[in-house]
Amino acid sequence: MSDFDPPVTTVRDVVARALAEDLGVLGDLTSVAVIPESAVGGGWFVARRPGVLAGTLAATEVFVQLDARVALQWHFADGDELDAGALIGRIDGPLRSVLAGERSALNLLGHCSGVATLTRAFARAAGARTRIRDTRKTLPGLRALEKAAVRAGGGANHRECLSDAVLIKDNHLAFAPLGTAVELARARWPGRVIEVECDSLEQVAEAKMAGPDLVLLDNMSPDLVRESIAVLGGVAPVEVSGRVELATVPDYVAAGADYIAVGALTHSAPVFDIGLDLELPRKA
Amino acid sequence: MSDFDPPVTTVRDVVARALAEDLGVLGDLTSVAVIPESAVGGGWFVARRPGVLAGTLAATEVFVQLDARVALQWHFADGDELDAGALIGRIDGPLRSVLAGERSALNLLGHCSGVATLTRAFARAAGARTRIRDTRKTLPGLRALEKAAVRAGGGANHRECLSDAVLIKDNHLAFAPLGTAVELARARWPGRVIEVECDSLEQVAEAKMAGPDLVLLDNMSPDLVRESIAVLGGVAPVEVSGRVELATVPDYVAAGADYIAVGALTHSAPVFDIGLDLELPRKA
Amino acid sequence: MSDFDPPVTTVRDVVARALAEDLGVLGDLTSVAVIPESAVGGGWFVARRPGVLAGTLAATEVFVQLDARVALQWHFADGDELDAGALIGRIDGPLRSVLAGERSALNLLGHCSGVATLTRAFARAAGARTRIRDTRKTLPGLRALEKAAVRAGGGANHRECLSDAVLIKDNHLAFAPLGTAVELARARWPGRVIEVECDSLEQVAEAKMAGPDLVLLDNMSPDLVRESIAVLGGVAPVEVSGRVELATVPDYVAAGADYIAVGALTHSAPVFDIGLDLELPRKA
Amino acid sequence: MSDFDPPVTTVRDVVARALAEDLGVLGDLTSVAVIPESAVGGGWFVARRPGVLAGTLAATEVFVQLDARVALQWHFADGDELDAGALIGRIDGPLRSVLAGERSALNLLGHCSGVATLTRAFARAAGARTRIRDTRKTLPGLRALEKAAVRAGGGANHRECLSDAVLIKDNHLAFAPLGTAVELARARWPGRVIEVECDSLEQVAEAKMAGPDLVLLDNMSPDLVRESIAVLGGVAPVEVSGRVELATVPDYVAAGADYIAVGALTHSAPVFDIGLDLELPRKA
Amino acid sequence: MSDFDPPVTTVRDVVARALAEDLGVLGDLTSVAVIPESAVGGGWFVARRPGVLAGTLAATEVFVQLDARVALQWHFADGDELDAGALIGRIDGPLRSVLAGERSALNLLGHCSGVATLTRAFARAAGARTRIRDTRKTLPGLRALEKAAVRAGGGANHRECLSDAVLIKDNHLAFAPLGTAVELARARWPGRVIEVECDSLEQVAEAKMAGPDLVLLDNMSPDLVRESIAVLGGVAPVEVSGRVELATVPDYVAAGADYIAVGALTHSAPVFDIGLDLELPRKA
Amino acid sequence: MSDFDPPVTTVRDVVARALAEDLGVLGDLTSVAVIPESAVGGGWFVARRPGVLAGTLAATEVFVQLDARVALQWHFADGDELDAGALIGRIDGPLRSVLAGERSALNLLGHCSGVATLTRAFARAAGARTRIRDTRKTLPGLRALEKAAVRAGGGANHRECLSDAVLIKDNHLAFAPLGTAVELARARWPGRVIEVECDSLEQVAEAKMAGPDLVLLDNMSPDLVRESIAVLGGVAPVEVSGRVELATVPDYVAAGADYIAVGALTHSAPVFDIGLDLELPRKA
Repeated sequence: MSDFDPPVTTVRDVVARALAEDLGVLGDLTSVAVIPESAVGGGWFVARRPGVLAGTLAATEVFVQLDARVALQWHFADGDELDAGALIGRIDGPLRSVLAGERSALNLLGHCSGVATLTRAFARAAGARTRIRDTRKTLPGLRALEKAAVRAGGGANHRECLSDAVLIKDNHLAFAPLGTAVELARARWPGRVIEVECDSLEQVAEAKMAGPDLVLLDNMSPDLVRESIAVLGGVAPVEVSGRVELATVPDYVAAGADYIAVGALTHSAPVFDIGLDLELPRKA
Repeated sequence: MSDFDPPVTTVRDVVARALAEDLGVLGDLTSVAVIPESAVGGGWFVARRPGVLAGTLAATEVFVQLDARVALQWHFADGDELDAGALIGRIDGPLRSVLAGERSALNLLGHCSGVATLTRAFARAAGARTRIRDTRKTLPGLRALEKAAVRAGGGANHRECLSDAVLIKDNHLAFAPLGTAVELARARWPGRVIEVECDSLEQVAEAKMAGPDLVLLDNMSPDLVRESIAVLGGVAPVEVSGRVELATVPDYVAAGADYIAVGALTHSAPVFDIGLDLELPRKA
Repeated sequence: MSDFDPPVTTVRDVVARALAEDLGVLGDLTSVAVIPESAVGGGWFVARRPGVLAGTLAATEVFVQLDARVALQWHFADGDELDAGALIGRIDGPLRSVLAGERSALNLLGHCSGVATLTRAFARAAGARTRIRDTRKTLPGLRALEKAAVRAGGGANHRECLSDAVLIKDNHLAFAPLGTAVELARARWPGRVIEVECDSLEQVAEAKMAGPDLVLLDNMSPDLVRESIAVLGGVAPVEVSGRVELATVPDYVAAGADYIAVGALTHSAPVFDIGLDLELPRKA
Repeated sequence: MSDFDPPVTTVRDVVARALAEDLGVLGDLTSVAVIPESAVGGGWFVARRPGVLAGTLAATEVFVQLDARVALQWHFADGDELDAGALIGRIDGPLRSVLAGERSALNLLGHCSGVATLTRAFARAAGARTRIRDTRKTLPGLRALEKAAVRAGGGANHRECLSDAVLIKDNHLAFAPLGTAVELARARWPGRVIEVECDSLEQVAEAKMAGPDLVLLDNMSPDLVRESIAVLGGVAPVEVSGRVELATVPDYVAAGADYIAVGALTHSAPVFDIGLDLELPRKA
Repeated sequence: MSDFDPPVTTVRDVVARALAEDLGVLGDLTSVAVIPESAVGGGWFVARRPGVLAGTLAATEVFVQLDARVALQWHFADGDELDAGALIGRIDGPLRSVLAGERSALNLLGHCSGVATLTRAFARAAGARTRIRDTRKTLPGLRALEKAAVRAGGGANHRECLSDAVLIKDNHLAFAPLGTAVELARARWPGRVIEVECDSLEQVAEAKMAGPDLVLLDNMSPDLVRESIAVLGGVAPVEVSGRVELATVPDYVAAGADYIAVGALTHSAPVFDIGLDLELPRKA
Repeated sequence: MSDFDPPVTTVRDVVARALAEDLGVLGDLTSVAVIPESAVGGGWFVARRPGVLAGTLAATEVFVQLDARVALQWHFADGDELDAGALIGRIDGPLRSVLAGERSALNLLGHCSGVATLTRAFARAAGARTRIRDTRKTLPGLRALEKAAVRAGGGANHRECLSDAVLIKDNHLAFAPLGTAVELARARWPGRVIEVECDSLEQVAEAKMAGPDLVLLDNMSPDLVRESIAVLGGVAPVEVSGRVELATVPDYVAAGADYIAVGALTHSAPVFDIGLDLELPRKA
């Protein structure tokens, strides 16, 4: 298990689905028709632009499931920064198998690296003191891979799901005042992190009294964040959320945020463009 | 089965995975702690900005799987254009169940509608004569939902997988001249669509002789596309690919492309922002 | 659970796989293109020739999984004899859903009824005293449905798998004399059926001493079966196997066989031809 | 991936189900009772009659999943013609594992080879100019294996499922005239094969006007097929369907059919009889 | 979702496996042979001795999956204390279905209620100030149900898995001093609970400096626990683990433990004896 | 397949679920934070008290699925008796992987060995003539592993599920007299074991007339068992059930029982305490 790997059991399931989806009932029509079964070939996974690598475990698993004879050697690791043109990894093996897995591997690498690359940009903007965190706004079935990619990009993981931490939001506060809600949560789920979402200074003042483990300031301006942090007086670390963009990250950092939660890392990261350049004889 | 629905069996699997991922071992800690089991509530799925709706079948399935008592009524259908603020659908039911499914439903709606919205923009730029098509550059496990969303956006679907059509690319041409490759494919897979990728006028000339069902012009300028189409002389419809962007779509349309394949529809569509606004009593 | 139903949980899995296989990534292209979403229609499942019905639970499940609005009413039950032209069941509902499930339902009905029909022919030839039994020579993934169809046809089920009864064959006898093998099996698996396969009178004599619960006479002529039964002297019921055909069944019955095991019931039953005749308006 | 292999991911699933079905809760009672854990043995998969081999990838996978120590060496490949008595493949390994997988492997080989053998007979009858094609009348869960076996037998694959090509039949024509139906399908699914089923010369004439990619003549006599082909005048290749039998294949070939679709290949192929002959010491 | 329900999606999977396991290939042989398909019957789930109920959602799901016509009405809820003889729930429906699900339902109820009953005993011994917590020592595949049962019994849930909180043990301390380990974990997983296991006063002193969120005192006597708590001086709540038994719980409570972790709740809880008493006519 | 192994395919599924459950979305937080990826380590699985080993195949599979580089060498086999302190098996490999699988492996070993240990105690009490048998009172999803553990402990397996043998109980007798019920079962399921449950001498007398393969005496005192056996006069072997405890086993043995069925073997076996002692450098 390397530092930025998702659990191998999940990777196996994701890859099995990807391959089932792409091989269909008949397999790769084109290769079977045109390429001899005995043909072998090799080449490089190449970065088409600068970015951050993620998803190598999943890409490896594609070929493990397809054909054990395919050899794959990574020259970079998840989390590494890539220049445009970087030779990321070398693949060699039976050509039909290489081509049958090419698209699945590239889809996995491209999406994970896209998440890592966007995360790295946010993390850089945030600097050393403030951490960029992801959210539960992930693509169905891909959460483990995306959250690993966030870590590869230098971000940190927020809740993995509804089951690992308490996050009290406005919908919950319709049923109990903030202080009561925190108490109820502590009683029901002792020893777990309790985070409270606030969208006004009044709520922040309430939160201060309730003593949660984390305070989430939602949709506040940097100034209001600064003011809220002053109100809280250090009772808990402060997380900021609500469509923070790359350009506004420094303002929230300056305002004193400990964490900035960014849904876009996982729901809107454009693909990172990686290609597979094979070295094949060229027919006249 | 409405016009833009993915197969219901696939939707069931995708939703089951999404819920397993988000409910974890303990379920929704926060609701169980703070909201009474008997509480009911309702509200609206609301578009936060203008766009095109997709993914309602999957969002419905989230609540079918969670709690049959949740009622969900869509006021728009997949493919509909939404203004910012549009009330997309009404949900009512046991509040714990509504909240337990909220994020999964929004993740599905947001991603599918994001794909549909981006597709619509491309389709509009392409006009009536040229069709925008997707690619196999989809997110693992989500291909059926994404391809349905492309249709909802007004695009058309290219190959569903390696198994439903032949697409001869440069890697294949290392093993057989273009004409031979087409013949081999016709012999092995009679009665199937055979598409040939060309990246030079020489290849286009070869393709003309080979008589494929479709010619894919990859990474060509609009001028080169125009010239290629002239060379082909109507022997087959022409598809253009290679990082075509919204701004350059009209140039390729003007050059005479029948189809434009756009990977970004599925690999880089930003989320479409939809929220769930619940009507709950507000505690003092 | 009717008398000839396979376990409903297995039926669900088989049908889910059948539908996934047939709906693919995009669903039913033709219906979506040509038939309005609002169209409803109805018709009859019709027997094209005489036979025995089986598989109705699975066919029902096809439409349960596809669309709860489809109504299906069977006029015959599994095990019933059908004349050519018999109206087996009535289906009504949204036409796209009816057509999306048609082939899967017919494939299930046709195969199960094919197994039941062939079994009925053998059972008839065997008469009241001798029972026709199936084998483990079933199609992968379909054993529960096929074994239920055998019962619908009037046959009985042999072992469901390697795990429910002992069957000592020649390969086992290379490691222990027949008597020892029976003792070993009785000691390891007390309270289970122990059957011994014999292919010569010498082995039959050994079997008599060993006292198994069943004796399987493999590849013997009717005369040799008669002789073997005489040797056994009633120590255990006798099963006959080895490519017994319809024409030779009466000879084995006359020879005194209690059971006749017929692999062909499940591995070689031709489909029973059932069609779906829909009543639709005919366009000019 | 050899020429006639189904996708390896599907093979894995089919085999896992077959083994689960056959091993049950307790595994192979008989072997555990009678055969020592340390016993090794070997032998041959043997053809009991002449035919065409298919299913070797699946049979191999049986032992991969059961016990990596089992060695399996095929002396023939899928698609090869076998004489009665042919030694198809050699197996060696721990005897308990060999026996635990024997029946599953034989069931897979027997069914796939049965399909290939029947296909070869049809393909031979059809000669070089006309191709025999399969249908969607496959056994649930086994489509990929059966369609691969059809190719091994020398046939070609028709649609893999409802999702890869359009096939307009009489039920669809209740909602749109043939020409309109073709236009609707072209508009909805551009770049895909559109086939039209005709059962009268009137429909054939309509089809000629509509210009589909393929015309399917259903339940027509050879004479009517010949006449239809004349009417069509080469506008599209012609496929014939409707219970064509081995004996009538040449008539349809002579009538000019390009393809003949035969449901029996997959729904009614009798098993091809293959046995496993182990070389074991014989106890006195 | 009631207070002590596991996620419904997990319950569905567990029940599907339980039924598949118990229905096998042929279903319930006995009922099919002896009980008419039309027979209906009803009766009560009855507690055979005093205890705490859990598992009703899973028991309900058994019959949902088997037969929608079975009606099940619970007269007690998870977490309720039951006297011996208590009528827990009423079941009515087709008798074959009731009997087919009986054992699966009782196995689920019996195990979950066994866990809840044992937990209640510990919780009672611990009193109001100290919470009993479970561990990851759960039975494979049943964690969600067991952890829900612990809550029903009045206990609290510790980590759900390796992924939701940090727990630094002696094996980790071989690679970093305790303080460094806590810092590394905070840096890698900000905003998550960090618990440190100590088995000596020296480690406790180190833990005090490191400032974890929880301190776990493993295998300490009550006196040593008291001393450790004094050393910690309130820097973090204290959890006690290491084969604490019912009899020694009060000593650890008196020593000041905030939590007591008890593996036996899930790995050694004896079944709670529940029966299903059906009211059936008695044959003479 | 060793003598006490459950089917490897089931083991694979159980282990995959156990790992998915324990690795969650993010994997092992603690190891990733504190232990270098390159760290290797080794140690011993150690018995903490005397007992009987079971579950080694499943424990091995944990590390096969996690990391092929982990080496695991068992020094004892399933069924072996262990002294407290026995070094059961040696593990070596990448430390993160060893720790990631530790708890899952121990949970499997502990539960299976717990079942085997309890079974051994009963088997010993029963002596050579009477066999201890398990029941269907198993934990959902774990039946195959538990029944294998019962055999490792020296017990025998009763029915594997509802589908492999007939067991006529009082609920069935409401619909047919005992003799009729046996006849019905013989007719429907020829060649299968038919067991009849009796709870009075009257029923025993009826059973004698009916001639079942096994008679189950439920909830009878040893004296009544003796009397029943006298009544039966050897017509069938006799099984005793109904909360027989270790202390009362000898009385039932003395009364002449052939089998004693004990639900507690699988529903109430406490864990067998096994630990993993790793040899790691100790930091100052």
